[in-house]
Amino acid sequence: MTYNVQVTVMPLKELLDPQGKAVMGGLQNLGLNTVQDVRIGKNITLQVEANNPEEAKKIAEEASKKLLANPVMEYFEVAVN
Amino acid sequence: MTYNVQVTVMPLKELLDPQGKAVMGGLQNLGLNTVQDVRIGKNITLQVEANNPEEAKKIAEEASKKLLANPVMEYFEVAVN
Repeated sequence: MTYNVQVTVMPLKELLDPQGKAVMGGLQNLGLNTVQDVRIGKNITLQVEANNPEEAKKIAEEASKKLLANPVMEYFEVAVN
Repeated sequence: MTYNVQVTVMPLKELLDPQGKAVMGGLQNLGLNTVQDVRIGKNITLQVEANNPEEAKKIAEEASKKLLANPVMEYFEVAVN
């Protein structure tokens, strides 16, 4: 069966996110002053062939560790739909 | 009150996603052959000051339309936590 897996990769909370800071500045220039903090990461959707959702999640976690996320600067979350 | 809003920006389904295709090739080189399709977009978290979740969602949608997403190539989804 094919599972739709969503992997979210975000910069670690302890680290500054210069891209997010730049976007927040842009939003404030556009008059959106109620936005107080912006952090930008990646959203990756995978179609995974597996026998059950647990196996699909395991494959996605392996993919994240090996290629999708850089553990020095990022953390990831995996959700199977 | 401050709401945590998640904006997901993904390439339109009708369009090719060369970045996703490249990552899929990388995963297959790593032996993860059960991954069949990869699409890569952005995940943006905003801290929005608003009176209620509806207002926070509206502000995030305005930010997405004005700056975060390019409607020619991308669609976005907004979720308030």
